[in-house]
Amino acid sequence: MNASDPTHLDRLIHEPGRLMIMAYLYVVEKADFVFLMRQTGMTQGSLSSPLSKREAAGYVEIEKSFKGKRPLTMLRLTDAGRTGLREYRESMSRVLDGIPD
Amino acid sequence: MNASDPTHLDRLIHEPGRLMIMAYLYVVEKADFVFLMRQTGMTQGSLSSPLSKREAAGYVEIEKSFKGKRPLTMLRLTDAGRTGLREYRESMSRVLDGIPD
Repeated sequence: MNASDPTHLDRLIHEPGRLMIMAYLYVVEKADFVFLMRQTGMTQGSLSSPLSKREAAGYVEIEKSFKGKRPLTMLRLTDAGRTGLREYRESMSRVLDGIPD
Repeated sequence: MNASDPTHLDRLIHEPGRLMIMAYLYVVEKADFVFLMRQTGMTQGSLSSPLSKREAAGYVEIEKSFKGKRPLTMLRLTDAGRTGLREYRESMSRVLDGIPD
C-alpha cells in the first residue's frame, strides 16, 4: 500500500453528500442552514445528521440563535475542517494521478 | 448543481475499497484473484462481493478455470469498466478543482 491507496481517504469527507456539504462550507465564511439546504438540494433530515457528525468530529461549528422570532442555524467549517478538506483533496488527487490514461 | 457536484459521482466506483479494486485492474490486462487479494490487502469475503456487483454492472469480467487441479479466477476490467473509471477520474477532478486553496 502506498500514498495513492484510496482506503486512507478521510471517510468523514469522502461520501458524496458529505463532500458536497464540506465543499460548500469551505468557500464561505459561514452559511445558514436554509441556504445550505437550497444550495445542496438536500432535505433537512439528510443534511442534519451528517452536519451533527461533522460537528462531533470537530469539522463543523453549528451556532443556533434567533433572527427576530425565527430560529437561525449558522454553520461554519472549523480550522480542522478546512485542513481536513485540503488534505482530502491532496490524497484524492494522488489516487487519481495513480490512474493512467 | 453543476459539473462539480459530487453527488453525480459513479457510486459503483467511488467507495474506497471499490476504487482500489478498479484502479488495480485498470493498470493490468488481467489479474488473478489471489494476486488481487495480496495487492489490496483485502480478504476473500471483502473482495468477492464488490467484484460480483461490478460483474453484474458490466464493469468486470470474471473467468473461472483450473490450473492443474487448482481453481483459478481471473479478473479483467471490461471496456465499460475502463471508461467508467476514466469518467470517474474526470468527474472527481472537477469536484476537487472546485475546492480552492
